[in-house]
Amino acid sequence: MRTVLKFGGSSVADVPKMKEIARKIKARQEQGESIVVVVSAMGKTTSQLLELAQTAAKNPSKREVDMMISTGEQVSIALLAMILNEMGVEAVSFTGFQAGILTGGMHTKTKILDIDITAVEKQLNEGRVVVVAGFQGYNEEGEITTLGRGGSDTTAVALAAKLGCRCEIYTDVPGIYGVDPRLYPKAHQLQEITWEEMKEMAFLGAKVMEPRSVDIAQHYGVEIYVGSAHEDCAGTYIRKAGINVEQRSITGLSVADNILMVTLRNLPEDTAPIASLFTRLAKEEINVDMIAQIPMESGGVGLSFTAQAQDQGMLEEVLKEEMSTLPGVTVELEKNIFKLSVVGSGMRTQSGVAAKVFQLLSENDIRFKQVTTSEISISYTLDQAHKEKAVRIIAEAFEL
Amino acid sequence: MRTVLKFGGSSVADVPKMKEIARKIKARQEQGESIVVVVSAMGKTTSQLLELAQTAAKNPSKREVDMMISTGEQVSIALLAMILNEMGVEAVSFTGFQAGILTGGMHTKTKILDIDITAVEKQLNEGRVVVVAGFQGYNEEGEITTLGRGGSDTTAVALAAKLGCRCEIYTDVPGIYGVDPRLYPKAHQLQEITWEEMKEMAFLGAKVMEPRSVDIAQHYGVEIYVGSAHEDCAGTYIRKAGINVEQRSITGLSVADNILMVTLRNLPEDTAPIASLFTRLAKEEINVDMIAQIPMESGGVGLSFTAQAQDQGMLEEVLKEEMSTLPGVTVELEKNIFKLSVVGSGMRTQSGVAAKVFQLLSENDIRFKQVTTSEISISYTLDQAHKEKAVRIIAEAFEL
Repeated sequence: MRTVLKFGGSSVADVPKMKEIARKIKARQEQGESIVVVVSAMGKTTSQLLELAQTAAKNPSKREVDMMISTGEQVSIALLAMILNEMGVEAVSFTGFQAGILTGGMHTKTKILDIDITAVEKQLNEGRVVVVAGFQGYNEEGEITTLGRGGSDTTAVALAAKLGCRCEIYTDVPGIYGVDPRLYPKAHQLQEITWEEMKEMAFLGAKVMEPRSVDIAQHYGVEIYVGSAHEDCAGTYIRKAGINVEQRSITGLSVADNILMVTLRNLPEDTAPIASLFTRLAKEEINVDMIAQIPMESGGVGLSFTAQAQDQGMLEEVLKEEMSTLPGVTVELEKNIFKLSVVGSGMRTQSGVAAKVFQLLSENDIRFKQVTTSEISISYTLDQAHKEKAVRIIAEAFEL
Repeated sequence: MRTVLKFGGSSVADVPKMKEIARKIKARQEQGESIVVVVSAMGKTTSQLLELAQTAAKNPSKREVDMMISTGEQVSIALLAMILNEMGVEAVSFTGFQAGILTGGMHTKTKILDIDITAVEKQLNEGRVVVVAGFQGYNEEGEITTLGRGGSDTTAVALAAKLGCRCEIYTDVPGIYGVDPRLYPKAHQLQEITWEEMKEMAFLGAKVMEPRSVDIAQHYGVEIYVGSAHEDCAGTYIRKAGINVEQRSITGLSVADNILMVTLRNLPEDTAPIASLFTRLAKEEINVDMIAQIPMESGGVGLSFTAQAQDQGMLEEVLKEEMSTLPGVTVELEKNIFKLSVVGSGMRTQSGVAAKVFQLLSENDIRFKQVTTSEISISYTLDQAHKEKAVRIIAEAFEL
């Protein structure tokens, strides 16, 4: 049986931690499994390399950023392979290029286009553990590329898809929870969750898995297991819907902090200024979310949307320029907002989830600012002050 | 005009130093030169990575050591390319693999077999500065390999050989001296030196250039310039013999410290035990040098040779085992020995150099222990206590 195991940066932060995971890999191999291990850079290495790049250039070339940060995983794979070899486990390390991971041409946040699995399969067939550098690949020009945030998960899932096997992601939490336990200590860990639910939760702020890798898993039918790298306890399976999954109305609750909410009032009914605004925001790479528009009594329209707090400076500049030709418009920018989302495939078949949430918030005197819905989720923006209470009452009501 | 510039670890130790060399590269490019830059890892990076490997495994796999230490140059090339780009100089970085540097299969101290210069030439023709990682290449299995000590010089000279251009090596000294200025402060810097003399001096202990890269330069007729990375002053050319060179009887004096001298007496005339001893020493990778054998009055033979102090433990073990079956043999091991060599192509045409050295030593009551000669050098082993004096009297007599 083949398995892809992935260990994140905190699981390979130092040599003693690597020795711990090497022992696990050895035990698995001794049971006859063919093992591919995907590792991230050690601890904070990637951030440190990015800081170094910042000292060299204000706006470092992205090609060169990839050249530099890809060394982080290269050190990890070499160390882990050394440790495995010393334990008597035959192992070889592969960079993204050596593992055949072909990506798009873009730098610092590219996508995997294909994997030529030949070299990895050859080593597996010869009985070796293959240690692959996560997060990195090469483009058609032969340049080193990186996959952006959560890239090592993507490497692991894509390799599992190509090898036709399952993927186990080991991290510093024991599995996926319905609610982040740091927000709601009584949170239940989920035994399983569907790919779709996991993606939605990830999009809406849950940080355990990046939506992109879950997307690949869903597309190729890869079962993912998420568990603790350092504790022996049951984790969570991410796979297609089983019977249990369908019976739940809500699987999880996600929270995204540091949200800005912009409200524009008295906009003309003509959509040109709004189109111009969003085109400009896209050009400046400001991600907007939760766009809502309502007609106003005055005859114009009101528009609100959310953005990330980190983009505040650029956002204010864009708003000032774009609204300068529209004298009647008022611009309001609210900080200290968070987004709370409830996610569940069960929403499709069970009506009343939205109604139940509205009622819970109302009973507890929590006013939400906006609400938007998707097929399997409902998101609210709320004042940061209500965060703890809102999470608790919803988590309790839906037994998350 | 094309030129290969090489900067060592101390010249790229931090970002300010890299910015300094980037300005020089920019100035050269603005004068219309096509520039290839070869850089080493920053400062002590390689040693630090090797220490990290030692914490992972007592005897780390050499394949994985190469995978790990090659990241050092990868960080340097990315940083330097970023800095150049930010200064408005179009530049791309290439790993050893990307620069087409094919090596032998061995790890940690392999040799360059060939360079496919296509990718480097393409970038040069498009007007870019190409920043190449020194010290590294790839073997036929596609594995990352490294070239061992002085490997970045070898990369630079081999690239210059392939590109048919000259090579400038920038380092932390202003050029090549007849005698190491730390040993003899009045030492003269040489304006030029032949490849052959430089190789001989390097073999005999001068640390500025590794003999291997000089060998490549000689074979392909590459002119090397050695100069200071951070001071503007004339350096030294390493090239074929000119008229000036031939007139000197001695070009330089090299010193190698930490030498052990072994003397075996009363060996049988039968050469089998000696052959066995040297075979065993080679197997244990103990480099021996300055082998001398003389017949003894007793009818047997006396044999002496030198080795590196770092090999003392293993050397003693080998001697004990090999001599155990030869009861009459006495083994003497002397420490605190150094080797002093005088080098010069002029020795070929001017007799009397050896005689002059013997006389100088004799006049000053310095006894040498051994003497060996090559076509362009004479080496002596002497007691460490005489080092300063011996260097001074020879340097003064030959105006080095």
